Amino acid sequence: MKIDATPYRTIWPAADGISVAVIDQTRLPFAFELRRLATLAEAAEAIRTMIVRGAPLIGVTAAYGLALAMREDASNAGLDRAVETLAATRPTAINLRWALDRVAANLRQVQNRERFAQAFAEAGRIAEEDVASCRAIGEHGGRILADLARDKGRPIHVLTHCNAGWLATVDWGTALAPIYVAHNAGVPVHVFVDETRPRNQGAALTAFELNAHGVPHTVIADNAGGHLMQHGRVDVCIVGSDRTTASGDVCNKIGTYLKALAAHDNGVPFYAALPFSTIDWTLDDGVAEIPIEERDGREVSHLTGRLPDGGVATIEVVSPGSPVANPAFDVTPSRLVTGIITERGVAAPSREGLLALYPERRRAA
Amino acid sequence: MKIDATPYRTIWPAADGISVAVIDQTRLPFAFELRRLATLAEAAEAIRTMIVRGAPLIGVTAAYGLALAMREDASNAGLDRAVETLAATRPTAINLRWALDRVAANLRQVQNRERFAQAFAEAGRIAEEDVASCRAIGEHGGRILADLARDKGRPIHVLTHCNAGWLATVDWGTALAPIYVAHNAGVPVHVFVDETRPRNQGAALTAFELNAHGVPHTVIADNAGGHLMQHGRVDVCIVGSDRTTASGDVCNKIGTYLKALAAHDNGVPFYAALPFSTIDWTLDDGVAEIPIEERDGREVSHLTGRLPDGGVATIEVVSPGSPVANPAFDVTPSRLVTGIITERGVAAPSREGLLALYPERRRAA
Repeated sequence: MKIDATPYRTIWPAADGISVAVIDQTRLPFAFELRRLATLAEAAEAIRTMIVRGAPLIGVTAAYGLALAMREDASNAGLDRAVETLAATRPTAINLRWALDRVAANLRQVQNRERFAQAFAEAGRIAEEDVASCRAIGEHGGRILADLARDKGRPIHVLTHCNAGWLATVDWGTALAPIYVAHNAGVPVHVFVDETRPRNQGAALTAFELNAHGVPHTVIADNAGGHLMQHGRVDVCIVGSDRTTASGDVCNKIGTYLKALAAHDNGVPFYAALPFSTIDWTLDDGVAEIPIEERDGREVSHLTGRLPDGGVATIEVVSPGSPVANPAFDVTPSRLVTGIITERGVAAPSREGLLALYPERRRAA
Repeated sequence: MKIDATPYRTIWPAADGISVAVIDQTRLPFAFELRRLATLAEAAEAIRTMIVRGAPLIGVTAAYGLALAMREDASNAGLDRAVETLAATRPTAINLRWALDRVAANLRQVQNRERFAQAFAEAGRIAEEDVASCRAIGEHGGRILADLARDKGRPIHVLTHCNAGWLATVDWGTALAPIYVAHNAGVPVHVFVDETRPRNQGAALTAFELNAHGVPHTVIADNAGGHLMQHGRVDVCIVGSDRTTASGDVCNKIGTYLKALAAHDNGVPFYAALPFSTIDWTLDDGVAEIPIEERDGREVSHLTGRLPDGGVATIEVVSPGSPVANPAFDVTPSRLVTGIITERGVAAPSREGLLALYPERRRAA
C-alpha cells in the first residue's frame, strides 16, 4: 500500500541480493525508518523486538531469517539451530512455525551450497503468496462490507482491534484488507480503531496506515467499543488472528475476546480475517490448548511517544512499586464468531465450516 | 486511609476556616501535592480538571464549592449561579447534583449572612456521612470477600476497574472499601487493577492507594481481564458507579460493561459498590436514558507520566492526524450485575431489590 503516494511493502529483498529490508515498526508512527537484516541474529532480533510484527509478516521474516542463516552455516546442524532460534522468538505465532517448517523441509532436499539461494527464493515465494492471499481475503471480506453499506444505505462503521493491516503482512493486511478493498471500490467505510494497549498498535499503526491511505477512521480507547456497540454505532467487527483452532476459536491480541462478547451482546457481526497458515488443525479448544505469551510488564508500565518538541520519549505511567502482568493474547471462542474470512471465502466458525473451504485437510485428518 | 503511615482524607476544611484543602490527584502517583480551594471558581476548576474525581468526592467538593461561593455572593441569584456553575462541571455525576440540591435547599431556609457558615457546616456533614457510608459499604462487601476466601480456602483475586478507592471518596472508597475491610481483617485478598484508559486512574490511583496501604495487587491492561477470567484467575469483580438506575443499571467508567460481559460469560460474580446518593430513582433504562460525557480526545492521544530523569512529561501516542473519540462512561445493564453493595447491605440489581433496602423510596414513588 502507499505511504505519501509511494507504494511500499513491509519486507523486500535488498539490492545486494543477500539481505532484506524492512520498515522498522517500532519507530512508527512518528518516524519512518528502514532496517536492513543481513544475519540470522538480526532477523531473530527484528521479530523478538517487534521491528516486524503481525503473524504473516513474522512468518515471511522468519523464512528470510532462515535464508540469512544459510549464508552463515548451511549444515543440517546450522539449519536446526536456526529453526530453533527463530521459533523461540514469538512462541504464540503459528505462522512462524509454519513458514520455518516449509523452508526447512525444502532445504533438506538440497545440497548445503544451494541452501542460501533456495531459501531466499522460497521466502520470496511465501511473501508473494501472502500478498495474493491477503488480496483474496480483502475481496471476500470486502463483499460483506459492500453488502452492509448497500443494506444500510449509509456509511458503515467497522471496529477493529490491534493492527492486522498491511503493516502486519507483506501488503493489504488481513482484517484491514476488506476495508481497503471496499474503500478502493467506493464503498463508504469508517473504521473505529482500538488503540490496543499495551503496545498501542491500533493507535500507532492501524491509524497510521488508514490515514496514509485516506480511509476515514477514529481512534478510541479499548474500553470504548462496548459502549459504541450498545448505541448502534458499530455495524461490524473485523479482527485478525495469530492462531485459529480447527474448531474456529480465534487467538488474537489481548482484548479481542472482550470485543467479541460486546458484539455478541449487541447483535453486531464479528469476523476474524486470516490466511490458512494461521489455522492450527491440531487444536480444538483454544482457551484450554493455546499457550498465551506473557510479555514484559514494562510494556504496560511504560509508554513511548512524541514530546511537544518532536523528540521521542518513554514515560512511566504505573504507580511505582506496583507489580504488572502482561498476557499478550486471548482466545475468542468460536461461539462468538460470525464467520472466518480466509483467502478461499467466508467459513462458518467450526471444524465443518473450515473443512468445507479446505477439503484437502479432511483427507489429512 | 494512610499514605506513608500518615492518615489522610481527600478533602478537609483548612485551618483558616474559610477554605478547603484537597489532594491534587492529577499529580499522583509521582508527586503528592495538596491544593487549597478558596473560591467557587477554584472548586469548579478542581472538579472539571479532575484535581478531585470520583462521584462521592465530587459531591463533597461541590458542596464546599457552594459554601465558598456564598463568601463571594450570598444572594439567591449568587446561589443559583453557583449551583449552575458547579452542576455543569461533570454532567454525568449524579452525586454532584444531589449534593448541590441538598446544600442549596438548606441555604434557601436561612438569611444571606448565615449562608457561608451554614453551607460550610453542611458540606462537612456530607463528608462525614460519606465516610460512614463507605465504611458500611466496606463492611457489607467485606463479608462477601471473607466468605469467598473461606469457601475457596486460598487467597482470592478481585478485579476492579478505574479508581473507586478512598481517593474517589472522602475515605475508604466504594469498590475498594470491601477490599480494605477484608484486608484489615486478615482475609487474603489480591487485586487485579485495570489500568483504565484513557486517564489511567487504575494504574495511577488504585495502584497507588493499594500499594500505600499494603494490599497485594497487580496492574493489568484493560484488555487482559477477559483472558484472566477465562482461566479462572478472577474470583470476583467489584466496581464503583457514577450513576445507578432504579432498575439496577450501573453507569461507571468506560470499559466497565466489557468486564461485566466477561464476568457473566465465565460465571464470575460482578458487584457494583455505591452509596445511595449515586442512585437516580428517576431512571429505568440506563443505556437509553443516561447521557454519556464525551471528553477531550487529547486524553486518549496524549499521556502524562514520569521520565527516566524523574521529570513529568506528556507524550503523544496516537498517529498524528487521526481523529479521536473519548466517551467517558458506559452502562452495565442490571442483567450482568450480581449484586449492588450499598451502605445498607447487598441488593439484588432490580427496582425491587433496591427498594427493599430503601423502603422510604417506595413511599416516594
